[in-house]
Amino acid sequence: MNAPFKTIALIGRFVDPLVADAMLSLAEHASRRGVRVLIDAECPVEFRSAVERIHEAELSAGAELLVSVGGDGTLLHAARLAHGTDVPLLGINRGRLGFLADVSAAEMLERFEEVLGGQYSRDVRHVLEARIAGPGAPERHARALNDVVLQKWQTGRMLDFETWIDGRYVNTHGGDGLVVATATGSTGYAMSCGGPIVEPNLDALVLVPICPHTLSDRPIVVNARSQIEVRVVAQAPVRAQVTTDGVVLGELQTESRLLVRRADSHITLLHPPGYDFYRILRSKLHWGRGARHGHAEP
Amino acid sequence: MNAPFKTIALIGRFVDPLVADAMLSLAEHASRRGVRVLIDAECPVEFRSAVERIHEAELSAGAELLVSVGGDGTLLHAARLAHGTDVPLLGINRGRLGFLADVSAAEMLERFEEVLGGQYSRDVRHVLEARIAGPGAPERHARALNDVVLQKWQTGRMLDFETWIDGRYVNTHGGDGLVVATATGSTGYAMSCGGPIVEPNLDALVLVPICPHTLSDRPIVVNARSQIEVRVVAQAPVRAQVTTDGVVLGELQTESRLLVRRADSHITLLHPPGYDFYRILRSKLHWGRGARHGHAEP
Amino acid sequence: MNAPFKTIALIGRFVDPLVADAMLSLAEHASRRGVRVLIDAECPVEFRSAVERIHEAELSAGAELLVSVGGDGTLLHAARLAHGTDVPLLGINRGRLGFLADVSAAEMLERFEEVLGGQYSRDVRHVLEARIAGPGAPERHARALNDVVLQKWQTGRMLDFETWIDGRYVNTHGGDGLVVATATGSTGYAMSCGGPIVEPNLDALVLVPICPHTLSDRPIVVNARSQIEVRVVAQAPVRAQVTTDGVVLGELQTESRLLVRRADSHITLLHPPGYDFYRILRSKLHWGRGARHGHAEP
Amino acid sequence: MNAPFKTIALIGRFVDPLVADAMLSLAEHASRRGVRVLIDAECPVEFRSAVERIHEAELSAGAELLVSVGGDGTLLHAARLAHGTDVPLLGINRGRLGFLADVSAAEMLERFEEVLGGQYSRDVRHVLEARIAGPGAPERHARALNDVVLQKWQTGRMLDFETWIDGRYVNTHGGDGLVVATATGSTGYAMSCGGPIVEPNLDALVLVPICPHTLSDRPIVVNARSQIEVRVVAQAPVRAQVTTDGVVLGELQTESRLLVRRADSHITLLHPPGYDFYRILRSKLHWGRGARHGHAEP
Repeated sequence: MNAPFKTIALIGRFVDPLVADAMLSLAEHASRRGVRVLIDAECPVEFRSAVERIHEAELSAGAELLVSVGGDGTLLHAARLAHGTDVPLLGINRGRLGFLADVSAAEMLERFEEVLGGQYSRDVRHVLEARIAGPGAPERHARALNDVVLQKWQTGRMLDFETWIDGRYVNTHGGDGLVVATATGSTGYAMSCGGPIVEPNLDALVLVPICPHTLSDRPIVVNARSQIEVRVVAQAPVRAQVTTDGVVLGELQTESRLLVRRADSHITLLHPPGYDFYRILRSKLHWGRGARHGHAEP
Repeated sequence: MNAPFKTIALIGRFVDPLVADAMLSLAEHASRRGVRVLIDAECPVEFRSAVERIHEAELSAGAELLVSVGGDGTLLHAARLAHGTDVPLLGINRGRLGFLADVSAAEMLERFEEVLGGQYSRDVRHVLEARIAGPGAPERHARALNDVVLQKWQTGRMLDFETWIDGRYVNTHGGDGLVVATATGSTGYAMSCGGPIVEPNLDALVLVPICPHTLSDRPIVVNARSQIEVRVVAQAPVRAQVTTDGVVLGELQTESRLLVRRADSHITLLHPPGYDFYRILRSKLHWGRGARHGHAEP
Repeated sequence: MNAPFKTIALIGRFVDPLVADAMLSLAEHASRRGVRVLIDAECPVEFRSAVERIHEAELSAGAELLVSVGGDGTLLHAARLAHGTDVPLLGINRGRLGFLADVSAAEMLERFEEVLGGQYSRDVRHVLEARIAGPGAPERHARALNDVVLQKWQTGRMLDFETWIDGRYVNTHGGDGLVVATATGSTGYAMSCGGPIVEPNLDALVLVPICPHTLSDRPIVVNARSQIEVRVVAQAPVRAQVTTDGVVLGELQTESRLLVRRADSHITLLHPPGYDFYRILRSKLHWGRGARHGHAEP
Repeated sequence: MNAPFKTIALIGRFVDPLVADAMLSLAEHASRRGVRVLIDAECPVEFRSAVERIHEAELSAGAELLVSVGGDGTLLHAARLAHGTDVPLLGINRGRLGFLADVSAAEMLERFEEVLGGQYSRDVRHVLEARIAGPGAPERHARALNDVVLQKWQTGRMLDFETWIDGRYVNTHGGDGLVVATATGSTGYAMSCGGPIVEPNLDALVLVPICPHTLSDRPIVVNARSQIEVRVVAQAPVRAQVTTDGVVLGELQTESRLLVRRADSHITLLHPPGYDFYRILRSKLHWGRGARHGHAEP
């Protein structure tokens, strides 16, 4: 049993009325329990209960818990606020269940209550650090809970790039780009590119080529302590962009290098009692459907 | 047996010395046979034999045969010059064998001689016509021998789009985009996206989703007479670009429609004697390699 | 508008109580309309209305319509009874909607009534003919609505086999086997092996390697008039079995050949008004799910 | 630097003349160096140098090194002799380079000499233990260096089975079966079924469904300490067979369970100096081919 939370922050895309409604309910519920509620100062929603408005970038410094209201995209946004801190995240879903936002709308207040009161499990996830290093420009870096993606920017032509793992040359790829995903991110964009599911507690990264020219250019699962390096092979008309969790980090020039390794910080997700990764997989991926299977979901 | 050619055009990326060398050899060879040789006026290469320099866009009007020197990309460029005309194409490869440029460097002059003299087979390929139609802007359209591709432009977010075939709603897709490929294009980008090989003489198109969010969003092979319509579902930060054979046609706004159908013109490829589509497949895809197979390539 | 049916046969796996119940309802409904109902003589179900029991193999000779009650597997069984005749099929589903059995349980009687009265569209599907020809054994042959499958029989080792299309050598494959599917069968086992969806009205076959050793050994879509030949490369311990629509045709010895071509007969499926192939695809493949798509199914 | 070897065993499919020749050369070379050579007593090859013939099952007890001559299949056979012992393996290839048999024919004697003299690196690989446990029959078990495969035995029908990881229900699958592969086996049959490459030193297993009915039934990478359990869902006509490294362990009855976990023993591969896993991948998978890549292999 954990200590109850005294201050939380609510984070959500409040332009979505469903999200705004949920934020109002959650804020009221927290207030009634005597929990302080922090809100992004930019949020125009009028709350019916007491909230404190501070700059979004300050939320993780002021709160003991970040509550993300929305889908996995919103939770990734909340994770960006939490990077480098110890503040845990709770993901409350307004639409369909997410991989990360695993509290469904139907049981929102009940689960919220449990977590506020200290009933939860901690799920510590690895984080990636991406750096673009090269001559003539300051180094740019960012962290990612899901993935670092290198992708051609101008459509219509193939991107040629080389990969290196722990200093060993791996391959020269032609294609749309590369996803370097954490176990957490393996069920995100990496899966759309043909990558495997990686159990959250496995200490691994997965490198997934995007639409590779060579059909045998398959996903590779490597140790999470691996240092990944990617260089674009010079070819004038194609440009390559790097994103971390879907946010643009910058362009990768041919004389620069993209370096990806495990960050020295983590993201902690809180799950209400009863969390089951495989149940979420079954739900998200429509597994085992159909009468013929005869397996009753509990 | 066909009539010999009297005027040909040589087309190639002459900045590549291998290509320039081949163009010199081919031009000399043609001159010795009394064949007129047309060259793009922009080409700085100094030929040792007589050539006539005219504007690239006029080559297909002046020549009876377009000879593409380079890879499949160069042949697609030559095809753009030939669209809407009856001028056939011959593809001569400088590097590895291509699907379209199927005369290898090793046998270049021998095969060229055969084709000039009328020894070849005609291989008529369907062509796609892509149109972007919408309010507030003139319609843009272009033809494609390989494919029409709709692709997200700003990386980092999923593109949502709807497809319609002959007026019937097919699906709402989330992902990186869609390839509409001819049989010819099925071995190009479409194959990198998971599409099947389509025999060149099959009267079919293939729609291949690019990195689809939904794993069951599979390639669909449809009749080549089908009218394909694609609309982007409104979502502000994502932009969608349309390319035909790798060349940008334009952006697809949410209020516009991308229409793809078979053009009323064709592209004719000439093959020297002995052309075998499956031999090219085996060569390009490294099929049947390894001693265990025991099948001797002729 | 078509003429009403006067005699029908009901076919189903009557050991399944849901199927038996549906057969009772359909028989009663038909009787009340004055339609004769034929039933397999082996069927132990006691009907409440008049039925005529004849040998299953005679059903298609005696009836104007075969009504399959069950899933796609049952419809494939009914198709085997109909091969070589003109008797059409209606597929009524007891569980989830099928690709072939496209009348759902919920609207069973209503749709049945429409079809009995002549309100339906005819959907003529191509059929494959598979032959195993070789020395020392009588030729075996069978027809298939969905697919002809060559598959290793003893697990644990790879099967090596060669494919030929219209007499041209295609490839020497190593793997678990090969699916030759009609457009109809493209959404069956072929799809589990990585094959594309082929529109039902496209005159094409698809050859799909099963778990190929070579990753570039991709599905090929060919003209439906193609003659496919497959030979097993001699390797003692592996045995190869041929099935048509899941029913064993026989073993393919190394000195024998598997020949697959389009049969000279068809299977006609009847659809009640409103049939839409793409709606079935969306339903079966869970396409377009999730609130974000915003596309309302009619 | 390691101590030189004094006694080795040579293992190979001696019916293959290439293999027999190599075995003669290796035996002579070893004899000249004063190394004792053990040979399977069943081997009919007449050696020109002194060899000791003992029962194959005794080879690993008598030798300090098992030298496998042939492909990866031969090395898996040699590994079966080594399971449970500390005797390392050296794989010498007669045909194309293998993933496991990584000494090529061209440099056979040179590399053999290096290894005999103690110049090698040790590469310790995890091993799986598979057990079939159920009522009414003695438990069967076996070890596998590459994979444990559950596969339908009678072709033509789908196999339904359930998977459990560490006691947690994962999924009910329909399809041809399941591969449970070590990192070592990830580049074997598992890859043909769509599984990812797993770095040899990653402490992970991969579960790869074979031709799954549900397209979202994707490979899962899990911790190598996971306990995998598989049960066949009752469906009379389908039988399920279990193989370990391609050798039949037995049939999985519906009332039985297949249990797979990491064995408490390892297999040690010896590599001559210069071993590079990624170089082998590039060679085996034809990566980075084509002049456009411009990357020179060292």
